[in-house]
Amino acid sequence: MLIIDGLQYVNWTRELFTEARDGGVNAIHVTIAYWENTRETLDNINDWEERFKRCSDLILPVRQASDILTAQKSNRVGIIFGFQNCSPIEDGLHKVSYMYDQDVRIMQLSYNNQSLLATGCYENSDSGITRFGREVIREMNRVGMVIDMSHSAERSTLEAIEISQRPITITHANPTSFHNALRNKSDTVIRALTESGGMLGFSIYPFHLRNGSDCTLEDFCRMIADTVETTGIERVGIGSDLCQNWDYSTLEWMRSGRWASSVDYGEGSAENRDWPRQPTWFASSSDFGNLSSGLSTVGFSAAEIALIMGGNWLEFFDHSFQPGS
Amino acid sequence: MLIIDGLQYVNWTRELFTEARDGGVNAIHVTIAYWENTRETLDNINDWEERFKRCSDLILPVRQASDILTAQKSNRVGIIFGFQNCSPIEDGLHKVSYMYDQDVRIMQLSYNNQSLLATGCYENSDSGITRFGREVIREMNRVGMVIDMSHSAERSTLEAIEISQRPITITHANPTSFHNALRNKSDTVIRALTESGGMLGFSIYPFHLRNGSDCTLEDFCRMIADTVETTGIERVGIGSDLCQNWDYSTLEWMRSGRWASSVDYGEGSAENRDWPRQPTWFASSSDFGNLSSGLSTVGFSAAEIALIMGGNWLEFFDHSFQPGS
Repeated sequence: MLIIDGLQYVNWTRELFTEARDGGVNAIHVTIAYWENTRETLDNINDWEERFKRCSDLILPVRQASDILTAQKSNRVGIIFGFQNCSPIEDGLHKVSYMYDQDVRIMQLSYNNQSLLATGCYENSDSGITRFGREVIREMNRVGMVIDMSHSAERSTLEAIEISQRPITITHANPTSFHNALRNKSDTVIRALTESGGMLGFSIYPFHLRNGSDCTLEDFCRMIADTVETTGIERVGIGSDLCQNWDYSTLEWMRSGRWASSVDYGEGSAENRDWPRQPTWFASSSDFGNLSSGLSTVGFSAAEIALIMGGNWLEFFDHSFQPGS
Repeated sequence: MLIIDGLQYVNWTRELFTEARDGGVNAIHVTIAYWENTRETLDNINDWEERFKRCSDLILPVRQASDILTAQKSNRVGIIFGFQNCSPIEDGLHKVSYMYDQDVRIMQLSYNNQSLLATGCYENSDSGITRFGREVIREMNRVGMVIDMSHSAERSTLEAIEISQRPITITHANPTSFHNALRNKSDTVIRALTESGGMLGFSIYPFHLRNGSDCTLEDFCRMIADTVETTGIERVGIGSDLCQNWDYSTLEWMRSGRWASSVDYGEGSAENRDWPRQPTWFASSSDFGNLSSGLSTVGFSAAEIALIMGGNWLEFFDHSFQPGS
C-alpha cells in the first residue's frame, strides 16, 4: 500500500529517514520554511541537497507525482518540498516560479499571522486574499505550485478556494466539529475545499485532537469516517504534522519568528509550552500501520484505506504539480 | 517664518536642494523607501550620507526637532528620514530601533497594499492592525519613531490611532469631503487623528485635489480653512507630496513594486498614467510663498499661517522624536 504523509516537520537524520522508509512511507511533504526569507530558504534547500547526496539510498526529491512511484519501487522515501508560509518569496511575484525551479511544490499563503497574501488563523480579523495574494495565486496556478491554507483564517481560505483556478489543499488540520481549535477547519471550509476538488489532510498534532495527546486511535479514525460522509472518500488523506527531534528553541521560532517581543505560546500555554506528547499510537513514522488498522476497525474497506493512506494524495499531486495553462 | 514640508519625494540634486533652501524651506520629510527591503533601504540611506557630505552647505540630518532650528539658523534644509512603507523592517521587530539608529523618524505602516502590519488604502477589505503591527506600534512608541498612516486604509488607521500611546500623523492627504479619493481621509479619521494630538499634512499631489492639476490655490486654502474649523489650528500642516525630477519608471516602482504582474496605474489610468502636472501655484519648493499668500487671502492671520507652514510640525516633532517610556 502506498503511504504519503501530507506534512511532517522533522529534524532529519539518517536514522529518521530509515525509520520512515522502514515504516512503509513512500513520500513526505516536508517543511522548508516558517518565517525564513529568500536567502534563508535557499540555505535550507541547500541542506536538503546535501541530504539527497548523503542519503541517496533512502530518499529522493519529488518533482512530479511519478517520482513517488519511483520512490516506492526503489524502497526509498520521496521528499516533497513545501513552505508553511509565503515569507520565502518576500515581496517578489517572480520568486514563485524561481522557487518552483528549486522543486518547491506546496506553499501556504500565511502562517498564523497576517502575511502579504492572506490572513493567518491567529489574527483577530480576516480581510481575505490581498492584491498581491491574487497575483501569487494566479502565478502558483500557472507554474504548478499547490496552495495550502492549513494555517490561514477562514475568509482567506474560502477566497483562495474561489480565486484559485486549480484545487487547493489543507495539508494538516481537522474539523472543528471534532475539536474546536483556531487551527482546525469549519464544515463550511471543508465543504468548499473538497467540493472544488481540494484535499484535506488529517492532523495528528495533539493540539488539533480531541483530548489532545490522549486522543484515541478510534476517535481519530471515527472523525475520518464522519468527515468522509460529506467529503466523499477521494478528498482526504493524512497530514500527520509529525514533529520529531527538535528542541524548544525551534518551537519558539515557529511561534514567534522575529515578530514577537514576548513569548507567544501558540496553541500551548505558559504551563504547557513545550512540544506536545504524541499519541501512543502515532509516535513516529513507524506507526502508519496503526492508522491502517484503526481505519479498518471503524469500517473502511481495504480499497478505501489505500486511498486515505496515500492514493488520494498521489492522484491530487499528479494533477497539481504540472504547469497549468 | 519657519517652513516644514511634511512629505516630499524628489530625485535630489544640488540644484533642487538650493531651490528648497532659497524657497525658505527649513525642513523636509523625505522618502527613503516604498518597497525596499532592509538591504536596499540601507543603500538608500547611504546615498543620503553621501549627499550630506557633498552638500553640507545646503542640508543637514534632522534627528531631533531642535536640528530644524539649527537648519533655520544656518540657512540650510533639515532632512527628516521617513519610510512610506514598513518593508524596510521586513519581519523583524528589532529593526525598528535599528532604523531609528539610522535616523529614521517616521514610518508608514502600509503603502496602498496589505503589509505585515496594516491594510493599505487600495485593498478591498481592511482587517486593521495585525499581531505584528501591535508589536511594531509599541516599539515605535518606545524608540520615538512616528507612525504615519497616509497610505493606509480606514479601519487600520483608526486602530493605529487607538493602539498607539503617542499621537500619530497622516503626513500627506486631504479630506474626502474636499475630494473623494481612496488616498484621502474621512472626517471620522481626521477627527480621531487630531483629537488624539495627531497631525494632518495637506497634500498638493494633483490626484488628492479637487479638479486635479487645475485645483485653484483658493480652493486648496479654503479646504484648509474648512478643516481647521473642526481640527483646530494646531493639528494641521503642509505635506506637499511634491515629486520632482523622476521618470516614469520610478512611478511604476511606486505603484507596482515587485508584486504586480501587469501595470497598475494607481491613482492614474491607462490614458493618464504618467506623473501628474503640478498646479501652477505649487510647481516646486520655490512656491511656499504662494501658499502663505493663499492662506492669508482666505482669512488666516500671520500667526495662524506660521503654525500651518511649519510651527505645528515643529511642535509635533519635538514631542515625537524623543524616546518614549
